[in-house]
Amino acid sequence: MTGLRYSTHGRDMALLTAVFTPFTAAGELDLDTVAKQADDLVAWGSAAAYVGGTAGEGASLSTEERRALVERWCEVAAGRLDVIVHVGHSSLVEARGLAAHAESVGVKAISAVAPYFHRPDTVDALVDSCAAIADAAPTLPFTYYHIPSMTGVSLRASDVLLAARERIPTFAGVKFAHNDMVDLQRCLHLAGDEHEVFVGVAKLVLAAWQWGARAAIGSVYNFAGPLFRRMLDHAARDELADARECQLLAQQVIDAAAWYGGELAGFKALGSLSGVDCGRCRPPLVSPDPEQVAALHAEVTALGFLGRVR
Amino acid sequence: MTGLRYSTHGRDMALLTAVFTPFTAAGELDLDTVAKQADDLVAWGSAAAYVGGTAGEGASLSTEERRALVERWCEVAAGRLDVIVHVGHSSLVEARGLAAHAESVGVKAISAVAPYFHRPDTVDALVDSCAAIADAAPTLPFTYYHIPSMTGVSLRASDVLLAARERIPTFAGVKFAHNDMVDLQRCLHLAGDEHEVFVGVAKLVLAAWQWGARAAIGSVYNFAGPLFRRMLDHAARDELADARECQLLAQQVIDAAAWYGGELAGFKALGSLSGVDCGRCRPPLVSPDPEQVAALHAEVTALGFLGRVR
Amino acid sequence: MTGLRYSTHGRDMALLTAVFTPFTAAGELDLDTVAKQADDLVAWGSAAAYVGGTAGEGASLSTEERRALVERWCEVAAGRLDVIVHVGHSSLVEARGLAAHAESVGVKAISAVAPYFHRPDTVDALVDSCAAIADAAPTLPFTYYHIPSMTGVSLRASDVLLAARERIPTFAGVKFAHNDMVDLQRCLHLAGDEHEVFVGVAKLVLAAWQWGARAAIGSVYNFAGPLFRRMLDHAARDELADARECQLLAQQVIDAAAWYGGELAGFKALGSLSGVDCGRCRPPLVSPDPEQVAALHAEVTALGFLGRVR
Amino acid sequence: MTGLRYSTHGRDMALLTAVFTPFTAAGELDLDTVAKQADDLVAWGSAAAYVGGTAGEGASLSTEERRALVERWCEVAAGRLDVIVHVGHSSLVEARGLAAHAESVGVKAISAVAPYFHRPDTVDALVDSCAAIADAAPTLPFTYYHIPSMTGVSLRASDVLLAARERIPTFAGVKFAHNDMVDLQRCLHLAGDEHEVFVGVAKLVLAAWQWGARAAIGSVYNFAGPLFRRMLDHAARDELADARECQLLAQQVIDAAAWYGGELAGFKALGSLSGVDCGRCRPPLVSPDPEQVAALHAEVTALGFLGRVR
Repeated sequence: MTGLRYSTHGRDMALLTAVFTPFTAAGELDLDTVAKQADDLVAWGSAAAYVGGTAGEGASLSTEERRALVERWCEVAAGRLDVIVHVGHSSLVEARGLAAHAESVGVKAISAVAPYFHRPDTVDALVDSCAAIADAAPTLPFTYYHIPSMTGVSLRASDVLLAARERIPTFAGVKFAHNDMVDLQRCLHLAGDEHEVFVGVAKLVLAAWQWGARAAIGSVYNFAGPLFRRMLDHAARDELADARECQLLAQQVIDAAAWYGGELAGFKALGSLSGVDCGRCRPPLVSPDPEQVAALHAEVTALGFLGRVR
Repeated sequence: MTGLRYSTHGRDMALLTAVFTPFTAAGELDLDTVAKQADDLVAWGSAAAYVGGTAGEGASLSTEERRALVERWCEVAAGRLDVIVHVGHSSLVEARGLAAHAESVGVKAISAVAPYFHRPDTVDALVDSCAAIADAAPTLPFTYYHIPSMTGVSLRASDVLLAARERIPTFAGVKFAHNDMVDLQRCLHLAGDEHEVFVGVAKLVLAAWQWGARAAIGSVYNFAGPLFRRMLDHAARDELADARECQLLAQQVIDAAAWYGGELAGFKALGSLSGVDCGRCRPPLVSPDPEQVAALHAEVTALGFLGRVR
Repeated sequence: MTGLRYSTHGRDMALLTAVFTPFTAAGELDLDTVAKQADDLVAWGSAAAYVGGTAGEGASLSTEERRALVERWCEVAAGRLDVIVHVGHSSLVEARGLAAHAESVGVKAISAVAPYFHRPDTVDALVDSCAAIADAAPTLPFTYYHIPSMTGVSLRASDVLLAARERIPTFAGVKFAHNDMVDLQRCLHLAGDEHEVFVGVAKLVLAAWQWGARAAIGSVYNFAGPLFRRMLDHAARDELADARECQLLAQQVIDAAAWYGGELAGFKALGSLSGVDCGRCRPPLVSPDPEQVAALHAEVTALGFLGRVR
Repeated sequence: MTGLRYSTHGRDMALLTAVFTPFTAAGELDLDTVAKQADDLVAWGSAAAYVGGTAGEGASLSTEERRALVERWCEVAAGRLDVIVHVGHSSLVEARGLAAHAESVGVKAISAVAPYFHRPDTVDALVDSCAAIADAAPTLPFTYYHIPSMTGVSLRASDVLLAARERIPTFAGVKFAHNDMVDLQRCLHLAGDEHEVFVGVAKLVLAAWQWGARAAIGSVYNFAGPLFRRMLDHAARDELADARECQLLAQQVIDAAAWYGGELAGFKALGSLSGVDCGRCRPPLVSPDPEQVAALHAEVTALGFLGRVR
């Protein structure tokens, strides 16, 4: 059985964290911090760690680093937390190698973006690429990660879902990281109970929950998991005004972080304030300097964010 | 001395070939074919092989394959041909590793595109990335490869040139693969005699030559080098009408190839007809099937192309 | 008082119809059909006719035609239906003239897109343009019509809302025609009870309703008003599964129409099947031919659409 | 005979000026200034005035203003200068009216951009639109004005040329305002001696001249006509280094103007310094304030521009 279902038919929503990759001040992989990250996710109830994706700067790591990171996550998760590994790469050879490695070390599932240098032009070509990757880890569920802003591949995720489930035996669903709620709705409709749709835009989580989504993956949960949990608790109790207030606070925090360093570097700076410090982003991303981090800290505090974290 | 100058002050233009990477029918690296490629380039007078770039599907190779390919090119070039290696990667760690490897095996120069998953937002961030790569091969000239259609990084190449030459001791110039002739002109003006600007759009070679460019890198020379040499001979003798006729024939051939498989897969199919057969492209690129290749062959023959190859 | 509020605090949602402009077979304005359109809207309970917008092909009409059309709508609405007039134009002089005319003939409100040939680059410049138009009809509420796909102006609607309400005394709200639900949510939050946000994407109506939106403007109501009314009735009774089924049927119908002629020409062809026949679109839009219209008719019937219209 | 040929087979190039529209301080049409503009163009040898195009802010004028402006140009040109009128509009009805009016007042030729709100999706639909306009002035040559940055219509100009000359009896050629030199070259090749290709990017004039272009239309000639004339004189005498120096100075001046107010508002501010003062741009364009104009003046003077005007 290759499914990867976090949704239930209840009113709860699973939050999977697209974990940051911790770096030392010198920019080296900092594997010691991974255990703290895992403890934190377990503490607030994240359903899984999604490792080496966009937030994890997987594309900025070497293949060797990606393997070491995955191995470390498997050690520290130790049955407390699912580990889902992003294995996407511009090279399908590398992606297949990462997939096979992930399977060999016992992860829960794999996931991949579209190839992002030479890019597939058609849904068929994209699904062929996904199939090649999935085939290298035949016992693991495979989730297509749709993120056109990074890959430049804008083929509709719902069309990919339709084709992929016919072609890929282990196809499990879609991680949807795009503001286009129309395509997201169509994914949710098509997925039914067979496949999972992971909401990948933190600002749309409540709207997607209202529509029926029951699983999300995001980087914002690295530092704001408890806020989203509270939001979802309100939602489950039909306290929509309160839920919306949580969502809007999250949006303000996200906008503040983006102002100081783009979403990723700003988010990572917030992680250092409110959760586990994973250091700065690797180049080519530019991280806020200490003064900017302090200003960001002050700004989100003024919004009332930190007091709500726990 | 870290320069990489192919331009002279004369009327000739150096043609460097962005070589295809040969694959077997099974899609494996076919290193045996590299010697034939080198012989062909020497035969018609290509100044260098640019290895592992866009045409070489470098981003679709594994790191290990990229290294093996470079080593093979160094063996077969054997002083007859310069070898310039593209070491760009979404990960600067991998790019630096490829740069150091290239230096260790004795290539002439390195070159890199901008990081293309997490992307630099500013000229400064881009030049920082280039500097990190160049620094890993401190004895080799470094050329920035500007190709916004693939990388999504549209920062003006002329602005990069201005900043990079202040920051990178081994900065050698720009490979310019974009239709924007305004930015190309500015690059040529700023480069002066200090830096090289490689024209990277085959359809603009004659226009750029008229403007003063004296070096080009392209994939079209894999199969149409002699046609471009003839074009440049006409140009050097002020036979501009004849030169333009060659350029327009090249454009028709390029358009025909693009029609059948996109520029790269179509070009590679032409290579199989008129030069050295390097097989099909790797996924996610889709190659024309045998019938389409036959139709393309017929079409370019009707244009009068094959008869002009030699 | 310049407000233009259709939202109540209840669970109902007002549907305003962005009415087609009827043309004769020769492409001339067909004012005789307008009365039938008005009757139809009154029959199913549309709150208003939005005249001369994108669906109304306002930009394809002459100024004289736009005036005649507005006058006709005022006659036939006759207190049964609000008339809101789109007065946007590439020329602010023309837009102001249309605004003053609209005021003189007794419409309920005006609305305008951003200038779309020379375009405002900043929120300030855009709000200046809106202010110039609003000022020409000082007794009428003014609604900014956000539709980046047509205007090429992508400034965030929520930022426009924030600035416009400070600058424009008659500012009434935003018609939001864009898939970006994040910006839509921010508009709804900022608007509060003071301003109206009209959902302008038919596929997002239910999601926006769940989020709290209580007014929509769209062209789809020309032929599918009753379906959306039924959807909203389900929603108001917390029958979300049924509501979602209506929304998904609407989406399939929209996709079918778009397939045959782009959203607008395809929609207009559906109007001819299920409501009032407004003829074909004007060039440069291309309308489906009779065979295609028949195929579209068959396709939406197979989806179960026509049977649900009433 | 409907041709509109400015090219000869010689080495000279005709410069047609896309004239600014003069406004008073209050933003009203300032018809008194038109005579001065015409005198200036005659003085330095511009071949024609192109009226009401992008630089002329035609889309920001009312229809009535556009007619008045054209009539005034016909009066002041008085056989000294050709008058070519831009009649493009989002509405083909208005465009046809402007075309018929232009014919009735004795202009030399008409020209139009693609419809730019509802946009043609295919070459066929675009050529249909052009045909509808051309047909309203059947004795006048018609030139398609290709400017994707304003219209959002990116269909290749060379494909339009191919189709338009089969369909439109009065088709005269293309005004090409786009940096894509590949498409420009194809236009020049296809045009041959039958049709005219007007280079519409000032920074590409010399490159296009080298390629064989012999006519250009641009707004930069409002203030830098003499500089371009000098450039072309050098080119005609094979003094390419000098010609290139003129082109590069022009590019620096253009970049300086764009910095202060975007190309159009900045250009108009330069007009006030070095030629005939046409006032500020209309909204939604934002014009530099007096301090910025002074700074721009200082900057281009430092570049050596003003001393070279005459």
